Amino acid sequence: MIFHINRLTLIICYHKKIMQINREIDDYVKQLLTGKNFAFVATLMKDGTPQITPTWIDFDGKFILINTAEGRVKQKNVSRNPHVAISIVDQNNPYVMLTIRGKVIEQTTSGADDHIDKLAKRYLGVDKYPFRSQNEKRILLKVQPDKVLYTKP
Amino acid sequence: MIFHINRLTLIICYHKKIMQINREIDDYVKQLLTGKNFAFVATLMKDGTPQITPTWIDFDGKFILINTAEGRVKQKNVSRNPHVAISIVDQNNPYVMLTIRGKVIEQTTSGADDHIDKLAKRYLGVDKYPFRSQNEKRILLKVQPDKVLYTKP
Repeated sequence: MIFHINRLTLIICYHKKIMQINREIDDYVKQLLTGKNFAFVATLMKDGTPQITPTWIDFDGKFILINTAEGRVKQKNVSRNPHVAISIVDQNNPYVMLTIRGKVIEQTTSGADDHIDKLAKRYLGVDKYPFRSQNEKRILLKVQPDKVLYTKP
Repeated sequence: MIFHINRLTLIICYHKKIMQINREIDDYVKQLLTGKNFAFVATLMKDGTPQITPTWIDFDGKFILINTAEGRVKQKNVSRNPHVAISIVDQNNPYVMLTIRGKVIEQTTSGADDHIDKLAKRYLGVDKYPFRSQNEKRILLKVQPDKVLYTKP
């Protein structure tokens, strides 16, 4: 699976050791993005300072998907400034890690309700997302990666 | 343990549910900061976009401690702009999480070599930090927290 190769700068290092250089979002990276791993998403507050939140994560073959709700801090932040940084650690090995820098290029409610249920199934093993608030409007953030850095075991 | 109470805005919520409101960095938070948990640190690149890296973490009773090396991206970033955001997840329960926003108020090499060995002992069970590069200069970043958000089980 290859996408936006010319947009990617792939630098793979950890603790000053080059681990892997790769110009593809290969099955290994896809596996991290579609496993039960938590992602940490950094966005920019109104004053330009960084903010960070843990979240579930997904990948649709082209874009990184973050399922949030209207009015959440990160949703408001990326509406103002689309730049994000995402870090993911393999839940089974914290020294396997993936970092992505990119931009939210689309926000959509289309399919967001079904998608959060899909993530609830993956992460919690339940059919319906159990944390939904009344009148909550789910939103999918589609992130186009610009830079990808990862370690490969 | 109480510090900088008047500087802290403590909002504790996750998935729209208020979990805990607390105006102290209590033993629970200290435990997360001094356990074997990984932290994700967001800093700002030169162009103002967010960057994020996983790292070991510590707490000295007053400041959050990040042990890095001279010339690393986050060290250069905080030298330019001291604002950081830090997220920590309990390795034993990913739904227990702590987020801190604050500023690097001091960088020092004093004690940094001993401190990275202390962290190697905690995280890896070895007496000496095994990833040191030749001529690497370790630096302690001292983070003063401005906002703390956390869930408590």
